[in-house]
Amino acid sequence: MRKVAIVGVGMTKFGEEWSRGYRDMLIEAGSRALADCNLHGEEIDAIYVGTMAPGSLVGQEHTGALVADFMGLTPVPATRVEAACASGGAALRTGYLAVASGAHDCVVVGGVEKMTDTPGNEVASALGGAGDQEWELFMGASFPAIYALMARRHMLEHGTTEEQMAQVAVKNHSNASKNKFAHFQNEITIETVMKSKYISSPLKLFDCSPITDGAAAVVLMPLEKAKRYSQMPIEILASAQASDALALHSRESLTSLRATQVAAKKAYEMAGLKPADIDVAEVHDCFTIAEIMAIEDLGFFEKGKGGKAVEEGKTAIGGEIAVNTSGGLKGCGHPVGATGVKQAVEVVWQLRGQAEGRQVNGAKIGLTHNVGGSGATAVVHIMKRAD
Amino acid sequence: MRKVAIVGVGMTKFGEEWSRGYRDMLIEAGSRALADCNLHGEEIDAIYVGTMAPGSLVGQEHTGALVADFMGLTPVPATRVEAACASGGAALRTGYLAVASGAHDCVVVGGVEKMTDTPGNEVASALGGAGDQEWELFMGASFPAIYALMARRHMLEHGTTEEQMAQVAVKNHSNASKNKFAHFQNEITIETVMKSKYISSPLKLFDCSPITDGAAAVVLMPLEKAKRYSQMPIEILASAQASDALALHSRESLTSLRATQVAAKKAYEMAGLKPADIDVAEVHDCFTIAEIMAIEDLGFFEKGKGGKAVEEGKTAIGGEIAVNTSGGLKGCGHPVGATGVKQAVEVVWQLRGQAEGRQVNGAKIGLTHNVGGSGATAVVHIMKRAD
Repeated sequence: MRKVAIVGVGMTKFGEEWSRGYRDMLIEAGSRALADCNLHGEEIDAIYVGTMAPGSLVGQEHTGALVADFMGLTPVPATRVEAACASGGAALRTGYLAVASGAHDCVVVGGVEKMTDTPGNEVASALGGAGDQEWELFMGASFPAIYALMARRHMLEHGTTEEQMAQVAVKNHSNASKNKFAHFQNEITIETVMKSKYISSPLKLFDCSPITDGAAAVVLMPLEKAKRYSQMPIEILASAQASDALALHSRESLTSLRATQVAAKKAYEMAGLKPADIDVAEVHDCFTIAEIMAIEDLGFFEKGKGGKAVEEGKTAIGGEIAVNTSGGLKGCGHPVGATGVKQAVEVVWQLRGQAEGRQVNGAKIGLTHNVGGSGATAVVHIMKRAD
Repeated sequence: MRKVAIVGVGMTKFGEEWSRGYRDMLIEAGSRALADCNLHGEEIDAIYVGTMAPGSLVGQEHTGALVADFMGLTPVPATRVEAACASGGAALRTGYLAVASGAHDCVVVGGVEKMTDTPGNEVASALGGAGDQEWELFMGASFPAIYALMARRHMLEHGTTEEQMAQVAVKNHSNASKNKFAHFQNEITIETVMKSKYISSPLKLFDCSPITDGAAAVVLMPLEKAKRYSQMPIEILASAQASDALALHSRESLTSLRATQVAAKKAYEMAGLKPADIDVAEVHDCFTIAEIMAIEDLGFFEKGKGGKAVEEGKTAIGGEIAVNTSGGLKGCGHPVGATGVKQAVEVVWQLRGQAEGRQVNGAKIGLTHNVGGSGATAVVHIMKRAD
């Protein structure tokens, strides 16, 4: 397999973008990624687009070809990749394999979701399609309810508190307030979270990531070509993915995601690294409890110690490991299919030293962790600045 | 890139399977493909699933993980690939690249669609999402209307007749009647087609492929390992994909699919073959005119001579090139995401000499051609029996 690097990145401002559509967001993100590495359209060999539910949300499938069409890039092969909320990560991995294989020399990977401005209840039902529709959503178990079960069990087994979960939101809002692309630009306090209304106990409004519109894109090249397009190419050291049962009731544990553990183990092996080597990580905090579980399952902290670590500031910028410097799904927003690609954009900015007011000093190794549904898919990538 | 071979194939009976669901069809097809090469689940490294619109049709996204889950294969990485009606072909190509890259040694590629038994008008609107939703479907241009425009123009430019289109349906029903997995098991006459009601003039009911339920699966391996699992591995000599504008009004031609032409050209180059070398081809006949355009765009016949070639029996079994021996989309049925994988299953059976009453004598080289929407995606694969 050839070594692969990211040479260009771009994203739209995430948010409730009522005046913007699916198409123009993707084009903006893609154009920014191309401009970031001075790439011309005719050099692009293939496009992969991560997007979860455009059929339900905007009535459009076939969005790989849509991107090629509206970016003026036909007849470049263009394919949509879907793994629910991990669609972006899965698209990145698919693009990575296409370059690693030798089949393509220049691949653009985009992620996008248009979630506001739907006529009815499409968002809740579309997101429910990330879990087991027959055994969960049809029975009334929406995603906040599913993650609330995990949170309750984590509290019981490990003594995790609602305040510790709240601290995840506080940290991620603080990081987001320093990111001009983030959905939320405001800091919040523990009190804001604790006084917000319960969505599904113990999860409150501020424990939940928002409904967001947005897009992100990266450009991949073989490492050997990358220096021609970027002064600071970021090498993808590892790309790993794993699956688990869609439905929570079929899992072995309520407090760990096996898919995350398996994908992380493979990724560390592939990179020849261990959790302590990671300087900066974008993890999948669709709910605050998800970030606590993620930093445990990824090996940054012992199982059960995640809540305490957050409470003690170990995951803040300047702490032991900076987690979700972009603001994460909670602060930066969660346009589902875009999230996995946005995570890569943020890590690239961190490793290049371009993360402005939220820069982690001396960040050398970064990790992204993207989860589909309640954990039936996990995708982990590890990156470093190429020497 | 490593050489890749298909070692196992399987499919369900295609049809209006009112008693069968999305999940069990995929499992049946996958299990048959595994049994076909005596493969055990623990040897599988990755799964790719081609499916177009399960979110709209059965309320379930995240169907890569669904397959891993219900086949008992977690934590194997599992990813859904979508390119509208070319989802199966795009999934095959994605699986091919994953093996060619060296990342995975054993990949299962499935294709599936559950299209009957939806509560409302989901099928028409979901299929409309394969075209340009904003510029076509919202304006009332459904797929029969779009292909009718192509047919009308082909008749004008090249003198193609309604009887020649009807002959495509007659041939494909005849082939389907010899395929126990086909949706339609009955032969029809030119008169049947000509007397059927107009759906969108000049296309009549029997010019249109049906709404079908079904699934198909193939197992991919590096060629060097393939002999251990199959006495007759089928090597994938070429895999190519191309895109075009989603909307018909943005295309340069109404009578050719540029995506097909570009993908075919790449595929022939990659395989070191020319159209005349192909013995058997499964092409995308969502409407009869589509088969006529396909056999021209793939280079089997000159542009404008496709209708005549069909009329003269050149595409029948025993003719110059056997086209759609499975019955094609018209006769075998068109469970959208399954079609591209089913095409590979049929070609493998032909190249192994296992196509029973529809066997093409001495078939050595086969081609599959899968189209998304009205031509915004085309995927072409060329295969031969490994020596």
